Amino acid sequence: MDRIPILKLGRALLVTIQVDMHDRLATALEEDLSAKIVASGARGVLIDISGLDLVDSFMGRMLDNIAAVSRMLDAETVVVGMRPAVAITLVELGLELSGVKTALNVERGMALIQTRLTETGLEDADLGEDGP
Amino acid sequence: MDRIPILKLGRALLVTIQVDMHDRLATALEEDLSAKIVASGARGVLIDISGLDLVDSFMGRMLDNIAAVSRMLDAETVVVGMRPAVAITLVELGLELSGVKTALNVERGMALIQTRLTETGLEDADLGEDGP
Repeated sequence: MDRIPILKLGRALLVTIQVDMHDRLATALEEDLSAKIVASGARGVLIDISGLDLVDSFMGRMLDNIAAVSRMLDAETVVVGMRPAVAITLVELGLELSGVKTALNVERGMALIQTRLTETGLEDADLGEDGP
Repeated sequence: MDRIPILKLGRALLVTIQVDMHDRLATALEEDLSAKIVASGARGVLIDISGLDLVDSFMGRMLDNIAAVSRMLDAETVVVGMRPAVAITLVELGLELSGVKTALNVERGMALIQTRLTETGLEDADLGEDGP
C-alpha cells in the first residue's frame, strides 16, 4: 500500500490507520491530507487508530505533525479509537500529544468538531450528511 | 494486521479496506461485521474500497458474502469509492456484485442508507451525528 485513503464526511475528513506507518507512507499521508483540507474546505480531521495495538514514537510524532499542519490550515485534529494500552504507552514514551484532541470514537470526534463549528459561529455543518 | 477496524457512524457501520484481503482476514471481517451489526442495531454497512487499485475474484466474492449476510441481519451494504479501473475489472471477471449497492463516496452511500430508512418509515436516523 502506498496511500492511505482519506474519506470526506460532511465538513470533516476521516483517516483510518490500519498498518504500521513507515517514513514514506507518513509523508504521503501528511501531503494528501493537507491538500485535501484545502481542496475540500474541511474544518476537522478525524484519525482513527482503533486498529493499532501499538503506537511508537514515530507514529506519535506523525500525529503531532498532522495536527500542527491541519491547525495552520484551520482544521482541528481529533484522534479517535485509542486503545487503553496505546494511551499508556504514549504517556510512558513522554508523547502526550498535547496538540491533539482525542475522542472515544468517530461519533464523539464528529460531535467535537461540530461543537467547535457552532461555537465559532459558523453555519451548521450537517456533518455526515450529503451536500447539494 | 489481523483485524480491520469497523467504525460506527450513526445507524451505519463503516469499513475501509486498505490492504489485499487474505482468507483469514476476510473471515475475521465477516464475523466482526455481523457481530457488530447485531450489537449496534446498524441498518447499513459502508465498505470503502477507494484505497484499492485492484479487486480480484476473491475480494468480489467477499463483498457479495458480506452483503448477503448483512441483508439477513436487516442491514444494507453499500460499496463506495470504487475506482474506474476496478469497476472495469469486476465486469471483466463476471463479478457484477448484483447483491451490492454502490455509491461514489461515503457521503452518497450514507445518503442512500438514510433514504432507505426514511422510505421504510423508520425514524430519522441522524446518520453521522452523535447519539444521546
